[in-house]
Amino acid sequence: MLRYLTAGESHGIALTAIIEGMPAGLDLTAEYINTQLSRRQQGYGRGGRMQIETDKVELLSGVRGGKTLGSPISLQIKNRDWSNWSAIMAAGEADLTSRTVVVPRPGHGDLAGHIKYGHQDLRNILERASARETAARVAACTVGRRLIEHYGMEITSHVIRIGSVEAPRSSLENIKAHAPQSVLLCADADAEAAMIKEIDQAKENGDSLGGVFEIIVRHVPVGLGSHVHWDRKLDGRLAGALMSIQAIKGVEIGLGFRAASLPGSQVHDEIFSNGTGFIRGSNNAGGIEAGITNGEDIVIRAAMKPIATLYNPLRSINLENGQEDKAAIERSDICAVPAAAVVAEAVVAFELASAFLEKFSGDSIPEIDKRCRGEI
Amino acid sequence: MLRYLTAGESHGIALTAIIEGMPAGLDLTAEYINTQLSRRQQGYGRGGRMQIETDKVELLSGVRGGKTLGSPISLQIKNRDWSNWSAIMAAGEADLTSRTVVVPRPGHGDLAGHIKYGHQDLRNILERASARETAARVAACTVGRRLIEHYGMEITSHVIRIGSVEAPRSSLENIKAHAPQSVLLCADADAEAAMIKEIDQAKENGDSLGGVFEIIVRHVPVGLGSHVHWDRKLDGRLAGALMSIQAIKGVEIGLGFRAASLPGSQVHDEIFSNGTGFIRGSNNAGGIEAGITNGEDIVIRAAMKPIATLYNPLRSINLENGQEDKAAIERSDICAVPAAAVVAEAVVAFELASAFLEKFSGDSIPEIDKRCRGEI
Amino acid sequence: MLRYLTAGESHGIALTAIIEGMPAGLDLTAEYINTQLSRRQQGYGRGGRMQIETDKVELLSGVRGGKTLGSPISLQIKNRDWSNWSAIMAAGEADLTSRTVVVPRPGHGDLAGHIKYGHQDLRNILERASARETAARVAACTVGRRLIEHYGMEITSHVIRIGSVEAPRSSLENIKAHAPQSVLLCADADAEAAMIKEIDQAKENGDSLGGVFEIIVRHVPVGLGSHVHWDRKLDGRLAGALMSIQAIKGVEIGLGFRAASLPGSQVHDEIFSNGTGFIRGSNNAGGIEAGITNGEDIVIRAAMKPIATLYNPLRSINLENGQEDKAAIERSDICAVPAAAVVAEAVVAFELASAFLEKFSGDSIPEIDKRCRGEI
Amino acid sequence: MLRYLTAGESHGIALTAIIEGMPAGLDLTAEYINTQLSRRQQGYGRGGRMQIETDKVELLSGVRGGKTLGSPISLQIKNRDWSNWSAIMAAGEADLTSRTVVVPRPGHGDLAGHIKYGHQDLRNILERASARETAARVAACTVGRRLIEHYGMEITSHVIRIGSVEAPRSSLENIKAHAPQSVLLCADADAEAAMIKEIDQAKENGDSLGGVFEIIVRHVPVGLGSHVHWDRKLDGRLAGALMSIQAIKGVEIGLGFRAASLPGSQVHDEIFSNGTGFIRGSNNAGGIEAGITNGEDIVIRAAMKPIATLYNPLRSINLENGQEDKAAIERSDICAVPAAAVVAEAVVAFELASAFLEKFSGDSIPEIDKRCRGEI
Repeated sequence: MLRYLTAGESHGIALTAIIEGMPAGLDLTAEYINTQLSRRQQGYGRGGRMQIETDKVELLSGVRGGKTLGSPISLQIKNRDWSNWSAIMAAGEADLTSRTVVVPRPGHGDLAGHIKYGHQDLRNILERASARETAARVAACTVGRRLIEHYGMEITSHVIRIGSVEAPRSSLENIKAHAPQSVLLCADADAEAAMIKEIDQAKENGDSLGGVFEIIVRHVPVGLGSHVHWDRKLDGRLAGALMSIQAIKGVEIGLGFRAASLPGSQVHDEIFSNGTGFIRGSNNAGGIEAGITNGEDIVIRAAMKPIATLYNPLRSINLENGQEDKAAIERSDICAVPAAAVVAEAVVAFELASAFLEKFSGDSIPEIDKRCRGEI
Repeated sequence: MLRYLTAGESHGIALTAIIEGMPAGLDLTAEYINTQLSRRQQGYGRGGRMQIETDKVELLSGVRGGKTLGSPISLQIKNRDWSNWSAIMAAGEADLTSRTVVVPRPGHGDLAGHIKYGHQDLRNILERASARETAARVAACTVGRRLIEHYGMEITSHVIRIGSVEAPRSSLENIKAHAPQSVLLCADADAEAAMIKEIDQAKENGDSLGGVFEIIVRHVPVGLGSHVHWDRKLDGRLAGALMSIQAIKGVEIGLGFRAASLPGSQVHDEIFSNGTGFIRGSNNAGGIEAGITNGEDIVIRAAMKPIATLYNPLRSINLENGQEDKAAIERSDICAVPAAAVVAEAVVAFELASAFLEKFSGDSIPEIDKRCRGEI
Repeated sequence: MLRYLTAGESHGIALTAIIEGMPAGLDLTAEYINTQLSRRQQGYGRGGRMQIETDKVELLSGVRGGKTLGSPISLQIKNRDWSNWSAIMAAGEADLTSRTVVVPRPGHGDLAGHIKYGHQDLRNILERASARETAARVAACTVGRRLIEHYGMEITSHVIRIGSVEAPRSSLENIKAHAPQSVLLCADADAEAAMIKEIDQAKENGDSLGGVFEIIVRHVPVGLGSHVHWDRKLDGRLAGALMSIQAIKGVEIGLGFRAASLPGSQVHDEIFSNGTGFIRGSNNAGGIEAGITNGEDIVIRAAMKPIATLYNPLRSINLENGQEDKAAIERSDICAVPAAAVVAEAVVAFELASAFLEKFSGDSIPEIDKRCRGEI
Repeated sequence: MLRYLTAGESHGIALTAIIEGMPAGLDLTAEYINTQLSRRQQGYGRGGRMQIETDKVELLSGVRGGKTLGSPISLQIKNRDWSNWSAIMAAGEADLTSRTVVVPRPGHGDLAGHIKYGHQDLRNILERASARETAARVAACTVGRRLIEHYGMEITSHVIRIGSVEAPRSSLENIKAHAPQSVLLCADADAEAAMIKEIDQAKENGDSLGGVFEIIVRHVPVGLGSHVHWDRKLDGRLAGALMSIQAIKGVEIGLGFRAASLPGSQVHDEIFSNGTGFIRGSNNAGGIEAGITNGEDIVIRAAMKPIATLYNPLRSINLENGQEDKAAIERSDICAVPAAAVVAEAVVAFELASAFLEKFSGDSIPEIDKRCRGEI
């Protein structure tokens, strides 16, 4: 069983994660993880914080000489702006009266967190609820990504909507060729231009934008996940992991909501033989049937709502005096859909790694390699 | 921690579930659960099996004199058609050559299950992958529903799409008044009529249909779920539970995918005071912000693909001879969206019960009652 | 991950268990499980209930034609005395005024359970706290036993103490030859005779007895469990499972407490080569070092306190009137150490099966067989 | 649910732990944890490493201004000797040919770990199997200790055996007065003197020693743990946690193994009324009946085998050449029983904190305080 915990406040001294259950002998470097951390920080529409933080991970345990040991992997991302926050965020004696936040932002966890935990200073909620947390999640889950890449899986993502702009459907080849170069992870240049314009407009309005992205995983072995118990179904696990990413409000697999509109004869993927195995005439299922991978590409989309912090803030209540007030402003992005796509890639990779190790467990990568050569 | 396991093959002797973690002293009867089992069996477009099975649950443990004991609750739904299947499905010596299934159905788990588990007779897969399993899930999760209803929550659902027919948006009052009476759980009579027509047409075509339904939970306390760790976020847990229901391909909360198209100023729910507490000007978040309930209604929708078994079957491969063949036909429904909505109500209720007990734990209901009187 | 839940009250309609995570293709029959259930019921010193219940398991799911399907295995042990209890223990309307228990027994969970759960009738506690529950645990865990036996492991147990009588140390050959025939699972005839005498004396006194038993597992593969995280250490998992058996108050592995008295030079098992592999000069570690099996026999002992129900009852308080009173008497055994040994065999087997599947996972037994032929 | 993960190699850059599930508002400081880390490092018979490492914890998240936030608590213990190890233990390019270990030590996890994980350099096993890991466990679990101390519980321990020397039984007052001052956590001065002598002798012999310690927890609320399911029984959970500590080979609760020798009339703790509540005439159960705390002191003992590294090493096999060789020597202690007692205090405290939060959950300490004032 692969498992992980993350910890860390947005302006705390560091983000930390521990990943437990990875076999010994997997190639893993800080650089490999840093590539994903860097991707998470990019994208048109990001705010000032992104400049401060060039996130770098430090591997504190579980890896020696570039290979996993089999022991828990711990990693840390230091807050490069800590000197400006150490007085306020200190674990010990701290300045609890500066930079307090007392007007909850609609769309953020400020108000519900305040009521739940009883914190009067909303900073004590937002420091953990903010999407800064996803840096740790990307770092942790990228360890899982390393495993699935070792076993030949390939994960990619692209943005298909920002606000009102939707990109036209595109071939996977086109996506792989163009999305990585795009400042919005968008494979279509015209759509990208329109998205940029809409982001610029939102910025001017003090507003924010969300969007939709798609994750595609290729070369997935048949048989990850299982139909036998509800909590082992891979589609449920992927949906749960994606919906847990900050600001995600919708998830769909394969045809997704469109599958609800069509008759079965136009939805289900017919089965053919190609001589050595089975092939499908389509992939409307998005690679998962009955909670099990069927060997086709996993295709999964998620919808992100706009960023909750608006520079032209919405109406709210000041918790100190009970009066109507403008919602608080924490330094924020206008649009972070490409970043969310990178986070989504990571969590999808982790769930796949976890399901892979449930099927092909072993104490070391050479042992699993040997096994898989005969079987996958 | 509330947890449960289910077991049982579609044509096995019985479905069984064990629920562990329920406090003592909750009113619970078989009749209460049977009401939900009965709802699961209804709906226009169901196949012949529904007539055989008037599912009745038997409470085998954990309940005495109409109240939970605090011990594990086990329950059983006997297969009323067992006499016709006992030779084939026996745990001991069994007839393994009758009623075999050898042509996998596109859209079902047959083929992936075959490859994963090595079963040559697809019956060994479909007996567990089929939606018959959801009867056990409804029964188990309805125990959780009892808890949240005891604490004043109220859960309802309605169908908003069957195939190409979409129902117009409706008020909650209208939904509560009309959906329960509808054979399709649809609050709008005109839409229902059009849906019935589309189902009739699909039946005539040997085809099948899916749809979209919506779950609404009222009177939800603030603070269920938590933002502090990804796997405690209630939205992720709900999405995971819903996506694990057979044939569900999409899940969205509040505005869902529509939130991706709008600017933040039109999405986030402004906060006002009503004198004694906080109110919102809208509920686009669907009751959950940062993975925590905010006191507004939980609103969550799911898309169901069409039933995988087509009476006019799709093309597939016969596993015995490797030749192209028509997919197998197991007795099946044309459309089961209302049933899926009832299953979804149950699993949502269970996740809420689980989150409720994480926040308001206690060994007995009187103890929790006392606590909640002072606090919720 | 192998997991299970059990349910059922002592005098309820049935005990139930669900086991999830077993691969497909394992030979499993009700008879195999019944053998263990029967062993659990035997032993000199058992009370009248043992005659009523000739426990028989019914496999309700997860097994077809004598082989596991890969789906959850559910099983049930009916209460053969149910007709005498149905009015009292009914889930629905029940007679809650007969056979109430209001004087807690020292040594049982009656009093702590009463305070914790608020039940005024201690029956609501003892029906689940009683060792009757172990019948379900034996049935469930014997599914794990089937797996480890399939992979060549062999588990045995013998009683080494009843009350003041300790059996002399014995060779494994002697234990295997004589313990199974003994009414006290004791390999030494003289000790057995003395134990019987002590049980007879206890019975005459209205008293009860405990004892010590030992579990030995042979042919254990190297590498079950892991040192890398505390909750994966096999010794911890075995100790936890054993201590959770009713009335167990001590657990030790290998030399156990004696290891604390000796210098390291007399404790640690030196390593030699036998040409093809490693052998040890002794097995003081009891087959586990650093939480990992080392290939030597697992040797683990547990101490059982005397049965809590005394026919010559201890002093207690009547909960109805607060007055001093004699503790309640529920029909009970004088001594149940051999039964506890059988339960212990089962739970040890289950933990080993679980650890085995973490190391050698697979969806079906043929697949794991193939793997193990090349590797173990 | 309270949970934690630890990570870190003995000579790695740092040990790390993340604790998830602690409510907001608990007083917690690094100093509080450091006190326990310091206690773990003390004790007569410790080796040279103890001088290098004056372990200091740094709280990296989850605590602000001296109070928990409700978010995951991460903490780190830096390796003060890292500069001497950075070349060898680096996550990136590392010197893998220096300080290799190739002769497995009997009693350690070296050989089983080598076979399991395939590491040729045993350093890759021992760096995680060594008891250095318990520093992280003490730090993590001390967070749980803070909670139970806040709720009035008081945990203490003392050493009752080192090698052949057993301390006489002592009153709790005496233990609390004298054990903390003893270099061996022993309440009896004469026994301590004899123990020191035995340790000196072992050192002279190049040998090592184990022993037995006892943990006592006072003011435990009734009702922690539960009888309703095997894995919720507190005795099982405590035994599992203790047995998972390095070198522990036996665990017993209350009378423990002695309970097996006595009749029930001399074992079970009679129940009396003291006017306001229940009291017991004895505490042979060690505070736990049926897996539930009964309000009496929890009394639990554990046996530690001698340290596996001997300066006068045992016989083993050199893995490089297959020849008989003397076991490897890593800098080590002669005796570490007092340290193990401190680790045991911590893990017991954590399990109690976990069980406490299952019974008295809440999002913040003020909320739980309010609840408990009315109830405990």
